[in-house]
Amino acid sequence: MKEVGFIGLGSMGVPMVQNLLKEGFRVKVYNRTPEKASGLVEAGAQQVYHPSEAAAAGGIVITMVSNDQALQEVTHAFADQLGAGGVHLSMSTVSPETSRQLALYHQERGSEYVASPVFGRPEAAAAQKLFILSSGPREAKERVQPLQEALGQRVFDISEEPGGANVIKLGGNFMIMAAMEAMAEAFNLAEKSGIDRNLAAEVYASTLFNCTVYQGYGKMIAGKAFEPAGFQLGLGLKDCNLVLQEANSLQTPMPLASLLHDRLLASAAKGRAQQDWSALARIALEEAGLE
Amino acid sequence: MKEVGFIGLGSMGVPMVQNLLKEGFRVKVYNRTPEKASGLVEAGAQQVYHPSEAAAAGGIVITMVSNDQALQEVTHAFADQLGAGGVHLSMSTVSPETSRQLALYHQERGSEYVASPVFGRPEAAAAQKLFILSSGPREAKERVQPLQEALGQRVFDISEEPGGANVIKLGGNFMIMAAMEAMAEAFNLAEKSGIDRNLAAEVYASTLFNCTVYQGYGKMIAGKAFEPAGFQLGLGLKDCNLVLQEANSLQTPMPLASLLHDRLLASAAKGRAQQDWSALARIALEEAGLE
Amino acid sequence: MKEVGFIGLGSMGVPMVQNLLKEGFRVKVYNRTPEKASGLVEAGAQQVYHPSEAAAAGGIVITMVSNDQALQEVTHAFADQLGAGGVHLSMSTVSPETSRQLALYHQERGSEYVASPVFGRPEAAAAQKLFILSSGPREAKERVQPLQEALGQRVFDISEEPGGANVIKLGGNFMIMAAMEAMAEAFNLAEKSGIDRNLAAEVYASTLFNCTVYQGYGKMIAGKAFEPAGFQLGLGLKDCNLVLQEANSLQTPMPLASLLHDRLLASAAKGRAQQDWSALARIALEEAGLE
Amino acid sequence: MKEVGFIGLGSMGVPMVQNLLKEGFRVKVYNRTPEKASGLVEAGAQQVYHPSEAAAAGGIVITMVSNDQALQEVTHAFADQLGAGGVHLSMSTVSPETSRQLALYHQERGSEYVASPVFGRPEAAAAQKLFILSSGPREAKERVQPLQEALGQRVFDISEEPGGANVIKLGGNFMIMAAMEAMAEAFNLAEKSGIDRNLAAEVYASTLFNCTVYQGYGKMIAGKAFEPAGFQLGLGLKDCNLVLQEANSLQTPMPLASLLHDRLLASAAKGRAQQDWSALARIALEEAGLE
Repeated sequence: MKEVGFIGLGSMGVPMVQNLLKEGFRVKVYNRTPEKASGLVEAGAQQVYHPSEAAAAGGIVITMVSNDQALQEVTHAFADQLGAGGVHLSMSTVSPETSRQLALYHQERGSEYVASPVFGRPEAAAAQKLFILSSGPREAKERVQPLQEALGQRVFDISEEPGGANVIKLGGNFMIMAAMEAMAEAFNLAEKSGIDRNLAAEVYASTLFNCTVYQGYGKMIAGKAFEPAGFQLGLGLKDCNLVLQEANSLQTPMPLASLLHDRLLASAAKGRAQQDWSALARIALEEAGLE
Repeated sequence: MKEVGFIGLGSMGVPMVQNLLKEGFRVKVYNRTPEKASGLVEAGAQQVYHPSEAAAAGGIVITMVSNDQALQEVTHAFADQLGAGGVHLSMSTVSPETSRQLALYHQERGSEYVASPVFGRPEAAAAQKLFILSSGPREAKERVQPLQEALGQRVFDISEEPGGANVIKLGGNFMIMAAMEAMAEAFNLAEKSGIDRNLAAEVYASTLFNCTVYQGYGKMIAGKAFEPAGFQLGLGLKDCNLVLQEANSLQTPMPLASLLHDRLLASAAKGRAQQDWSALARIALEEAGLE
Repeated sequence: MKEVGFIGLGSMGVPMVQNLLKEGFRVKVYNRTPEKASGLVEAGAQQVYHPSEAAAAGGIVITMVSNDQALQEVTHAFADQLGAGGVHLSMSTVSPETSRQLALYHQERGSEYVASPVFGRPEAAAAQKLFILSSGPREAKERVQPLQEALGQRVFDISEEPGGANVIKLGGNFMIMAAMEAMAEAFNLAEKSGIDRNLAAEVYASTLFNCTVYQGYGKMIAGKAFEPAGFQLGLGLKDCNLVLQEANSLQTPMPLASLLHDRLLASAAKGRAQQDWSALARIALEEAGLE
Repeated sequence: MKEVGFIGLGSMGVPMVQNLLKEGFRVKVYNRTPEKASGLVEAGAQQVYHPSEAAAAGGIVITMVSNDQALQEVTHAFADQLGAGGVHLSMSTVSPETSRQLALYHQERGSEYVASPVFGRPEAAAAQKLFILSSGPREAKERVQPLQEALGQRVFDISEEPGGANVIKLGGNFMIMAAMEAMAEAFNLAEKSGIDRNLAAEVYASTLFNCTVYQGYGKMIAGKAFEPAGFQLGLGLKDCNLVLQEANSLQTPMPLASLLHDRLLASAAKGRAQQDWSALARIALEEAGLE
């Protein structure tokens, strides 16, 4: 029986459900604003109107919602219905701490929690090209693996500790922001030296750093074009705070994360929380007198 | 006539000369310790015993030496012989300031200077896979282009200002060190969270950051293996100092470069200047109590 | 009627009660470990054995306990007894957030909360030389002022907002740590230049920086003597975290506080949380190869 | 015989010469723009019109000029005349490196060099309240001591190494800038918490930090008033660069100095080099959205 509930039909959730349908899963879908489900219903999904209806006793529910609080609320709404033997495949980007708390919450009900955040934008989701992280109890991870494989190109088994996958996801976002700051500073140096900053970006992105992060954000930072937001700076700041909290409680000094934090915070204080997180580069631009 | 002088037969210079010979150039080679030339002589190079003999009046001389001082010395030794109409293709990693000074030095003699540092290790040099940067007067750049194309996979025309290519080269080394620090901190966070740091490295290097810098240095930093040195930390510190000097004189604040500088300097004070520059990561390891 | 309850008989509380007695107040004293009260009873204090007994309906209770949690517990234990018209004069170093919560807690009971942390060590407390900060409702601040004046040399009226005094106290601790880091780096530079670091400390402390913080901590940092702890590094790290939390929620980037945090955190990871907070300087010593 | 030459009649030099005259010294004065000497001539000084005329063979010359280059130029102009047995008492704020070079320059002529920068503004100079640092050969230091004592309230014998006094002077300026950054951040936190930032400044300057640096700069930073310049930010940046150069060559990481440097550099790039160096605080104000 290939049946699954899916909660959260945002820009990521919709193409993910489409891929599940395409791979032959029967999917019950729930979203707070129900209109988002219409296309999926046409494609064969069954729409439900309360989170609990997405959960079958002992079944599997996937969640892909916008933040920690939303995840906590829907989990509290469906966990009793999911009950003993059920598995919650939690794919949102949330804090390790939230994963740890929800893992306990499920444990009290006999169900299990697999943290499974992803790397990839909506286009990658549509193309089944997501990279999928996975942490939680071994058996639960094995049980959800066919679903993960239907959604992405590769699954990484991170740890049994429930927050592990979230730590890796946050670490990845930190590394992206570090790359953006490095580019911002290097491109400014080039511009001040009289070199075309777009050329500088192209050189780096086609030689040492020929990977998507440098290619995509390199263009934005070189071109000083930070809107529309693919991922909002305010969310980057939130993730950076989560990184630093985790680092603080684990006694792991991360001075580069601190540097990024202070610059993201300044960006927010200057009213840029809704811009793309690459707008982090504007601080360096201002400091160099280039904006 | 495809004739050229080549000064500097180190681990980069030797395979570069081999490629020039393979592409049909006649090459006069000079090295301070003449023994290094023996293999090249067998392959068809003509060995000379003073830098000035590598230069034909109005011809082209390539230099690939170890640092700014060595470059200044050999240039002073061959520039008069090169004379009017000659071109010096300077491929060593040196400071923009040195390039600017040598450009003037040549100008006084009617010759021209093209700064042309490369991205790539000896293996890339052997495979003609170097990425080659180029800055200097337009005509001189055009004249040396066939040589550059014989040595690498792509040539980037950076600027007419002689130091431009050096700025881009230094910026690239800065970005590599920034990536290393980011990995060091992210891997430590993973380890302290109970996740295998080698797994963390593999996840990042096969998803968001699937490019050589993250793949190669990621393995070293995850594995805490910093010897033997591919590129010495002391040279990374020197480059970081050049970046900061240039940034200071151009009024371009680079706080991430400052952070890296302070950690490289601490590494040197702890006696690690001869280790691989990825040993920068040991500071973060020590701070986290992981070493 | 000059009657007051006093909870918390540590190294600060004991001399403070003695001063209150000396100034003619009748004092009911409570401490979790009751033995601490014996000297005070001889001096005229009345010992009680539950926090609630220290509170008279509508009266005043002073608290001087070790941390936020201890303050919350004792407050919950005496607030109902204090009741309408009472004032809680809270002199411990706690977070602004704790003050805000306890202000609300009292408000629900008709009592009022005055945050009143102090600058000064036990010797200053004994000499009635404390500097006393004060934030809370105007009338409550006026009512407790005679008590504050009996305890210190000067009272600063900071704000009506209950957390204000705590923000100023935390800011002061941040500024002390900043001074310690500045001295650490300057003394290292002197030592590496061949100058006696104790002489460097003396020069600064008797010229530009002739104030207690530089004189006292200057001697410790110059002499590399970080034990016994006057104030533990772990508590300094806690305060630094509180500063950064407040700064984050108020969108106030504090890069110097971030720098201090990362170095305090490294100190803790290296097992130095129980040393004096001036042991922060050991990171700079290690980085310079001086330890 | 109490005779001395004095070169450099700026805002510091003039009151210093007046004090020398008052203490019974005969003073030959030189300044590039000779008009500055008129008041001193009335007070009894003898004006000369070339630096070499200020020097008597085997005598003493004091210099108080604006920067390293000016010091080198005048020294080259009078050193031959000063000759064997002469002493150059060099009171300008210059780099340790310049002192080391000039010490050698004098040594070649049989004369000696005492580096003797001061702490104190023109008012302190007028009041004979300068603090005077002294480094150089023992006998030369003893010989100039009566002059130093005529000019200040205390003389500190730093080292025999000629650059030592300059290192201490630079370290002091670094510590002042560190204190300014700490105040900037702490006052911003107070303001964002709803506390009057002038009150915050007053609390700190009358309790923990009751010394001139915090009192004077505290008022400026709290009041956001950075002009007219007592000491220009551009000179602060120059000193910070000298600190970092010295730190780099001595392998002494100074991350707090790096932080200050980057903020001073940003200030310069924003066109604030002519403002008072306390305008460093404007970066923190902007980052917090307070300007």
